[in-house]
Amino acid sequence: MTATIIDGKTIAAELRGKVAFEVAQLKREHGVTPGLAVVLVGQNAASEVYVRSKSKAVVEAGMTPSDHKLPETVSEAELLALIDKLNKNKAVSGILVQLPLPPQIDPQKVIAAIDPAKDVDGFHPVNVGRLSLGLPALVPCTPSGCIMLAKMVWPSLAGLDALVIGRSNIVGKPVAQLLLAENATVTVAHSKTKDLPALARRADLLIAAIGKAELVRGDWVKPGAIVIDVGINRVAGDGGKSRIVGDVAFDEAVKVAGAITPVPGGVGPMTIACLMLNTLRAACAQNGVKAPRL
Amino acid sequence: MTATIIDGKTIAAELRGKVAFEVAQLKREHGVTPGLAVVLVGQNAASEVYVRSKSKAVVEAGMTPSDHKLPETVSEAELLALIDKLNKNKAVSGILVQLPLPPQIDPQKVIAAIDPAKDVDGFHPVNVGRLSLGLPALVPCTPSGCIMLAKMVWPSLAGLDALVIGRSNIVGKPVAQLLLAENATVTVAHSKTKDLPALARRADLLIAAIGKAELVRGDWVKPGAIVIDVGINRVAGDGGKSRIVGDVAFDEAVKVAGAITPVPGGVGPMTIACLMLNTLRAACAQNGVKAPRL
Repeated sequence: MTATIIDGKTIAAELRGKVAFEVAQLKREHGVTPGLAVVLVGQNAASEVYVRSKSKAVVEAGMTPSDHKLPETVSEAELLALIDKLNKNKAVSGILVQLPLPPQIDPQKVIAAIDPAKDVDGFHPVNVGRLSLGLPALVPCTPSGCIMLAKMVWPSLAGLDALVIGRSNIVGKPVAQLLLAENATVTVAHSKTKDLPALARRADLLIAAIGKAELVRGDWVKPGAIVIDVGINRVAGDGGKSRIVGDVAFDEAVKVAGAITPVPGGVGPMTIACLMLNTLRAACAQNGVKAPRL
Repeated sequence: MTATIIDGKTIAAELRGKVAFEVAQLKREHGVTPGLAVVLVGQNAASEVYVRSKSKAVVEAGMTPSDHKLPETVSEAELLALIDKLNKNKAVSGILVQLPLPPQIDPQKVIAAIDPAKDVDGFHPVNVGRLSLGLPALVPCTPSGCIMLAKMVWPSLAGLDALVIGRSNIVGKPVAQLLLAENATVTVAHSKTKDLPALARRADLLIAAIGKAELVRGDWVKPGAIVIDVGINRVAGDGGKSRIVGDVAFDEAVKVAGAITPVPGGVGPMTIACLMLNTLRAACAQNGVKAPRL
């Protein structure tokens, strides 16, 4: 048996297409164009690549990008002043501050300064709290993407034994909240967990978000399980080149799982698509328009 | 083998004593007397009993109580105006609005109106979010009490397989966050969970907070496990009288568990003790005084 490959690239492209359609409708019917402001501090090669692909997606979705590049030496006060300006700017529906930030800046202070209604990353304590409480919230993008991919192959996650490996604020914890909201029975495992393989073998749905290359082996996977691999790890490949692998040993797991996301081309593309969706939703909420169900 | 009985009544009394000691010190050294404002709307017999015992504990801890009774017919605007006044009152360190509220009032709107720094129930989205993010927060009282009781018999919960039965915003979800912060491997089960007995049998630490009388049977308990019973259920007793039982069949579980909380006299008394502790902590934070480690 070979698992169904969950094609994140295609699913993300479809979602971006739907967002673009709704953006066009929002413009036409309400005269509102969503705008995403992306703030990048310093020169981090990976961050720059990521910011460029976000801006490209914003334009393709028919939304207005505004990129704000600040020098590595910028003070916390200057960054907070920019955020204050973006909070007040009605053309800006969403604000994203690319992490990590240089050491003179407290990231929590910066995140807390963003208007929760514009916090399209879903990292503001108010959005984190509202997600946990089951109230409407802007939800972190990667976790949203994981749930969408899982539901592509298994429309109701209710009653599934779900295992989340990793408890980061960006993926592990919010994806656990989303799984609970989907009525899954949720276990969160991490570096202090004893006998992770045995836990994994019981999971109908396994979400790996621990950042360790190919940690999850094929014999950890319950036959027929859904495996969502959030890991993006660079390892040495053939001929001195590096290659990207996930947190799951794909070649092994694909023989056991019922469905699995590849790396790359699985969860990764969903993150930006969900960011577009969050920006659209934020724009709708700020303008008193009912958000589309996507 | 019979389980150790975790004597919540005594442990709570000790905690209240320590809080009273610290309150006296705070007065002496900083001239600060913590104050707790309790808001009660309408006439709910259970709520009135609970509010009275809170006020008594506040006085015994050397803090200043202020009780605010509003009629059942009070408008949302009037209640919000009172909260605004309490937010601004420097003598009030903590604000607690007794739930449930009558139907004309949106409880989420009321909770969100409380200054998060005075939210001693830990229900404000900002505190819920900060707890999840691992930032300093006012933490809900019953979950805090559960963790304290478990640590009385097992000082480090790291690596334990913990099962939380119930996913309420008041107990299940916050206690899961606290267990994660203690480095336990955490599973949250609920009404949609399949084969709850099998899950329970794997738990080193079982926290039952589902509100179903004696749902958890003795043969659900892993031998030697710590069992924390949050349930308070009134059932028919002998001779037509009612009696209070927990979510765990105590007489059965006590023969299997390593340690267990009784009902009553387990988690119950911890809730008010932790409320006193939260009020002390809030007063310290509002006055720039380092909170004592209790």
